[in-house]
Amino acid sequence: MAFESTLKVRFGDEDHARIVYYPRFFHFFHCAFEDFFDAQGFPYRACLDDDRVGWPAVHAEADFERPARFGETLTTRVAVRRVGGKSATFHFEVRGPDGERVCHGTVVVACISMDSYRGQPIPDKYRALFERHLEEG
Amino acid sequence: MAFESTLKVRFGDEDHARIVYYPRFFHFFHCAFEDFFDAQGFPYRACLDDDRVGWPAVHAEADFERPARFGETLTTRVAVRRVGGKSATFHFEVRGPDGERVCHGTVVVACISMDSYRGQPIPDKYRALFERHLEEG
Amino acid sequence: MAFESTLKVRFGDEDHARIVYYPRFFHFFHCAFEDFFDAQGFPYRACLDDDRVGWPAVHAEADFERPARFGETLTTRVAVRRVGGKSATFHFEVRGPDGERVCHGTVVVACISMDSYRGQPIPDKYRALFERHLEEG
Amino acid sequence: MAFESTLKVRFGDEDHARIVYYPRFFHFFHCAFEDFFDAQGFPYRACLDDDRVGWPAVHAEADFERPARFGETLTTRVAVRRVGGKSATFHFEVRGPDGERVCHGTVVVACISMDSYRGQPIPDKYRALFERHLEEG
Repeated sequence: MAFESTLKVRFGDEDHARIVYYPRFFHFFHCAFEDFFDAQGFPYRACLDDDRVGWPAVHAEADFERPARFGETLTTRVAVRRVGGKSATFHFEVRGPDGERVCHGTVVVACISMDSYRGQPIPDKYRALFERHLEEG
Repeated sequence: MAFESTLKVRFGDEDHARIVYYPRFFHFFHCAFEDFFDAQGFPYRACLDDDRVGWPAVHAEADFERPARFGETLTTRVAVRRVGGKSATFHFEVRGPDGERVCHGTVVVACISMDSYRGQPIPDKYRALFERHLEEG
Repeated sequence: MAFESTLKVRFGDEDHARIVYYPRFFHFFHCAFEDFFDAQGFPYRACLDDDRVGWPAVHAEADFERPARFGETLTTRVAVRRVGGKSATFHFEVRGPDGERVCHGTVVVACISMDSYRGQPIPDKYRALFERHLEEG
Repeated sequence: MAFESTLKVRFGDEDHARIVYYPRFFHFFHCAFEDFFDAQGFPYRACLDDDRVGWPAVHAEADFERPARFGETLTTRVAVRRVGGKSATFHFEVRGPDGERVCHGTVVVACISMDSYRGQPIPDKYRALFERHLEEG
């Protein structure tokens, strides 16, 4: 079961070539990652500030398949590809208003304590959340 | 005596109209504000983290006089217009490679404690720094 | 009659002080400005690319009243304060989830031809749109 | 022979976790990519606007090895890993003030015509530039 969220490409998201500046897609991935928590009863801010659990990226990659343009509403599908002991792999697939795929990529996040900034095992409640969205790549 | 710093306009700083997206100029003001501290022996990070003194903007305004474009090196002149008890007014003037003025504006910053996030009197060392750059508007 | 749009403050919108980096509020103003066109049947992209009409900011100012934080949904109210021959003044008021005002400000936009990048009279259809939202300051 | 450029991490580059927001590293890669052209006699803007040659990313990936923090000056080393017919692979390595590696990654760029936005063979002058920096991965 995948999770989906949408966002609107903004006037300032484009670069001089008049297409979305590619680092913005990683920001779009992160927006969908935040929504993944927020929309399923685990507010991302509370995860960090109350549960003291952070998810820094240790690896990120993406393939860009067609340009995206300002004014478009993009839909990002979030799936989980792997849940390890202290890290997890998320997969993001971004589609344009016509359903055509704009880009896709994976981000590996470590689970850290927001007190020590050191790695720690993924807490059970987040493990359960991630596992609900687990699917093979 | 004014302070100057430079920065290069980047590919991603432009928007769909192929000129610098106007909110970026306020970012450019902030870059010059950081450089103002860093270059004069008061590292901005140490100000916040060690001295526990922060400078949130309470008012900001700017006039945009001609577009700026990616690839240009801009020079920002920083002056201080007013040093109050718990706030100060900075003036920023941004010029293009030809010396022509691109924009100018003022930002009023409050002095706060980074522990309580409440207003506090400007510490003497920062007051002295600001007063060295005081000039009439 | 005012127009309203909402947006969610993102993880990356905060700065080292853990509050929204103030230049982002001008970006939030612009997002609401885009929505103002899009939601009322005048897609902002078509305005620029098809009608060849652009709206660069010539002046922008804002007062920041309380910090905003990531995870909050902000509501921006857009009103028009003045419709001139070749420029217009927009007013933005941003409120937090509790209805408390976070910041407010005005942006003066010039009307330009996207072909010549020179000022031009505001076309009738946009003048009518703006006048529907005109209110005294 | 590798190329190097530097940049300063800014106050607004950090996120709520008080480390550089990871999508910013891809922006840092792009800054170094622009500098690579600019500093070697091939201004990036002229490449796009005069030569009508663009370099959109078709794939990007990075490993993040230690956090970067605002106030740090980062040095990015740019090398070329492959020069194909219509695309090239760049490698970026970002180091902190202590010389320790912060992150590294690769970006595959396509060569396109800025008139048609379609792929085209890499022009000789850019091929020669890239080949001067070719090294094995």
